Amino acid sequence: MSHPLFEQHRPTLERAVEALRTRGFWSPYPEVGSPKNYGETAAEEGRVAFEALLGKRFDLGQPGETGTVAPEHSPFGKTLDVSYPVNEPRALLDAAIAASPAWRKLGPDGRAGVLLEVLARLNRHSFEIAHAVSLTTGQSFAMAFQAGGPHAQDRGLEAVAMAWRETTAVVGEAVWEKPQGKNPPIVMHKHFEVVGRGIALVIGCSTFPTWNTYPGLFASLATGNPVIVKPHPNAILPAAISVRIVREVLAENGLPPDLCTLCVSTDPAVTQRLATDHAVRTIDFTGSNAFGQWLAEHARQARLYAEMAGVNVVAIESTDAYAAMMRNLAFTLSLYSGQMCTTTQAILVPADGIDTPEGRIPFEQVAEDLGAAISKLLADPAMACGVLGAIQSEATLRRIDDAPNWGRVVLASRSIVNPDFPTAAVRTPVLLACEAASEGAWMEERFGPISFVVKVHDAAHLASLAERVVNEKGAITLGLYSTKPEVVDAMIEASLRAGVALSINLTGNVYVNQSAGFSDFHATGANPSANASYTDAAFVTDRFRVVQRRQHA
Amino acid sequence: MSHPLFEQHRPTLERAVEALRTRGFWSPYPEVGSPKNYGETAAEEGRVAFEALLGKRFDLGQPGETGTVAPEHSPFGKTLDVSYPVNEPRALLDAAIAASPAWRKLGPDGRAGVLLEVLARLNRHSFEIAHAVSLTTGQSFAMAFQAGGPHAQDRGLEAVAMAWRETTAVVGEAVWEKPQGKNPPIVMHKHFEVVGRGIALVIGCSTFPTWNTYPGLFASLATGNPVIVKPHPNAILPAAISVRIVREVLAENGLPPDLCTLCVSTDPAVTQRLATDHAVRTIDFTGSNAFGQWLAEHARQARLYAEMAGVNVVAIESTDAYAAMMRNLAFTLSLYSGQMCTTTQAILVPADGIDTPEGRIPFEQVAEDLGAAISKLLADPAMACGVLGAIQSEATLRRIDDAPNWGRVVLASRSIVNPDFPTAAVRTPVLLACEAASEGAWMEERFGPISFVVKVHDAAHLASLAERVVNEKGAITLGLYSTKPEVVDAMIEASLRAGVALSINLTGNVYVNQSAGFSDFHATGANPSANASYTDAAFVTDRFRVVQRRQHA
Repeated sequence: MSHPLFEQHRPTLERAVEALRTRGFWSPYPEVGSPKNYGETAAEEGRVAFEALLGKRFDLGQPGETGTVAPEHSPFGKTLDVSYPVNEPRALLDAAIAASPAWRKLGPDGRAGVLLEVLARLNRHSFEIAHAVSLTTGQSFAMAFQAGGPHAQDRGLEAVAMAWRETTAVVGEAVWEKPQGKNPPIVMHKHFEVVGRGIALVIGCSTFPTWNTYPGLFASLATGNPVIVKPHPNAILPAAISVRIVREVLAENGLPPDLCTLCVSTDPAVTQRLATDHAVRTIDFTGSNAFGQWLAEHARQARLYAEMAGVNVVAIESTDAYAAMMRNLAFTLSLYSGQMCTTTQAILVPADGIDTPEGRIPFEQVAEDLGAAISKLLADPAMACGVLGAIQSEATLRRIDDAPNWGRVVLASRSIVNPDFPTAAVRTPVLLACEAASEGAWMEERFGPISFVVKVHDAAHLASLAERVVNEKGAITLGLYSTKPEVVDAMIEASLRAGVALSINLTGNVYVNQSAGFSDFHATGANPSANASYTDAAFVTDRFRVVQRRQHA
Repeated sequence: MSHPLFEQHRPTLERAVEALRTRGFWSPYPEVGSPKNYGETAAEEGRVAFEALLGKRFDLGQPGETGTVAPEHSPFGKTLDVSYPVNEPRALLDAAIAASPAWRKLGPDGRAGVLLEVLARLNRHSFEIAHAVSLTTGQSFAMAFQAGGPHAQDRGLEAVAMAWRETTAVVGEAVWEKPQGKNPPIVMHKHFEVVGRGIALVIGCSTFPTWNTYPGLFASLATGNPVIVKPHPNAILPAAISVRIVREVLAENGLPPDLCTLCVSTDPAVTQRLATDHAVRTIDFTGSNAFGQWLAEHARQARLYAEMAGVNVVAIESTDAYAAMMRNLAFTLSLYSGQMCTTTQAILVPADGIDTPEGRIPFEQVAEDLGAAISKLLADPAMACGVLGAIQSEATLRRIDDAPNWGRVVLASRSIVNPDFPTAAVRTPVLLACEAASEGAWMEERFGPISFVVKVHDAAHLASLAERVVNEKGAITLGLYSTKPEVVDAMIEASLRAGVALSINLTGNVYVNQSAGFSDFHATGANPSANASYTDAAFVTDRFRVVQRRQHA
């Protein structure tokens, strides 16, 4: 008997599976938070719901509670003062194990139905979640709505759809009938059951607490695993709201809510203890190389999906739309103050300049013009605040201050006052110029609004240098500007060898640092920046096993 | 333009993909080596082709040759004296890297076509390969034909079909068109290209040099990777014939033969150097826990698919076909002298005996009757030689000699003379009885024809003990005999929790130690005996990445 939520959401699920194959534009979750899309009252209701959370205890009804913490400090300076339950990790693990059989028995269809209901409900909470994302991460509200709401939901649905495709690719039962010549055939009845690998742990990051959490969360749940979400201590609220909704939908459907729990802690030892527990078999992690490598070294009982640091590159050889190219790059470098794992850090430009319709433009001028484009984009303070958001961490503020040590300053960072949040740390990007040989400067990740225009010997070196950066340091994004087919072809080959997504000649409203759910794969898993991709088949197929049984018919 | 080999083999490929889904009986490669199936002259031609290899140099035309070795000693005592080229590992690695782009550019369809031609040609060489498998491993010729020929080819085709399904699940090109309200849509052209992870290394074992090698070999090739095959030093010839055929088909199709090379060495340091090379990104390994763990520890740059030791269990609670059960078990314990990773080692029997149509049979009697069933099966020396083959290694002979130290001998091992191979070491199984508490005896892998009838406290402990063995020691197979639904249900739940395939009440010509391509998954990947399965989606999806590029339309 089919699960009612599966029947209800089946059209969306099947359309999502088709989108994963055809990879055209599609989303069931509107990215524009207009009254037409979300209803006349949604924005205000979301704001009120969010405000009602502040200064209060956030209850989840999880087992093993030992106290509460309220560690979040908003980059916008707003007082949040939400206190979260702290739970004994062992209690969360034990509850997850106890809850597992019911989830396994629900089967792929039932799990997909329940999770699509979760996603639909997350979508209805998009405004509330957007406020939580914005105020914990420093993203502007508009960006937090898109990236933390519908775009994150897209990534969650992608994971559910891919998991459903793969877990239903094998029949549940089969009759195996082997001919025996003139004798009767041997007939066996066989059952094939999808079994999750075990408890999954999702370790969130400080900048994209839903977008980088939903893929692992939904992939692990959809493949039959219980999930413990360990949010970054400064971006708990978006995860807490999300986990609460998952638990509500589970409970409403007669399933144990402890299939999905939140583990709040400010002590890295707690995360380490969880990550190395024998029962934890899958870990999704977004964060620093240091902790990613610690996990790879110590959490050997688990399969690790890790997204870490990288040095994203754009190479400019020539363009037929110089001003549009500069506008496009300026936006990429400025959006959320460059605090994205996809933001370009190194812009490679030949020492003898680039070809444009206005003639050859020297290296120095390219750097100056990019600085000017950034200044122009951010000239209006209100516009600037909307693009930049706020600086999320003290470490990033320090890096901005230190940046002049790493190259010649083409454009200095400025402070901007956000009238809505006067104490917020708002900074414009710093743009540096340096020689390609200064690899210690530009070829280390400088997370935040810090970019380098790198002087490369000549155009023939662009592809090989970009390839080496991706191979050695990792990159999620690679961009190229060139009007010459042979230059484009060389960079395509470099991108295939190095294993990095390539954006060619972006001049319109598509940016190298943005990826679209159901169409663009986020990260490839083929270079050091990430060992997995949102969402290819490899992201889901190792989260479950098929366990069979057979007997004579 | 479609590849002619793809068009030629497409019906087989599509039927294989369908078989992987529906998991009924199917194979394109007849397991019976009759003249009707293989032609009147095939058997004799295969024998002649095999004999022609003996005492000669086996040329492959690979780069970096530094000398030759002839390390194989046949368990049947026959002189092989085939000398193989030894190649500088660096030369093989460099050649593989140089060959890669042509293989990538061929695309999933072309690769599948070429590999199905390889498999068709391997099938035509089944007799030659069977002689090579038999004389290097000690398998009887009949078994070597089936397991080393068509059944191994099934496992290879499975891998190609699964890889083709997964690599073609994403379109190669897409138009992404995002509506912009009243403005024209944003239109992007996108390309999605399947890229292998890098060089794959397949480390073969001494007992199943084709059956355990083909899955990794074909999975890695089909997903776009070059492969280096490192056979066990005592079972090189079957791998060498196979690699030569792969190279021939590649060359005939204008592709670089060094996409598939053979690395022969008797020095483990060579394997270790290969396995830890930065360019090696995938390793398939069948063998000991010690080397498997070494690989997991040291070859961290590669994804490892490992099949290692385990303790396979059969639990007997009751049966409605006592004699048939005993015959079935006797054959399982005797086939290839138990030198299979799937052979039952521990037979759990309640202390107070089992229910049968003949009444309750005490523990001791069950053990005796199993011993008697083995004796009966092997009473005729010719029949015994056909079932047992020869003991492959000195270590297994020593274990047989040591076996009486580990329990009470119910049935002692006997030597049998094989008139065709008078110096072959042919041994019947040794059957021991012991208490469940003697875990140091029966709960360690005793590879070879050594089994234990284990006295378990009562029937209620069977499932929990079996589950613990699988969890702690690993198992590829689990069997149960019971007529009681509640006992069967408890064992099914145990098998799902522990992650092991369960065979229930096998009494006919299906044995717990045998798995059928396209229907039975070999290993689950969910317990310590193996971290992967032949062939589920997880076996192929992490061998490639999708690398995309996009630009404005």
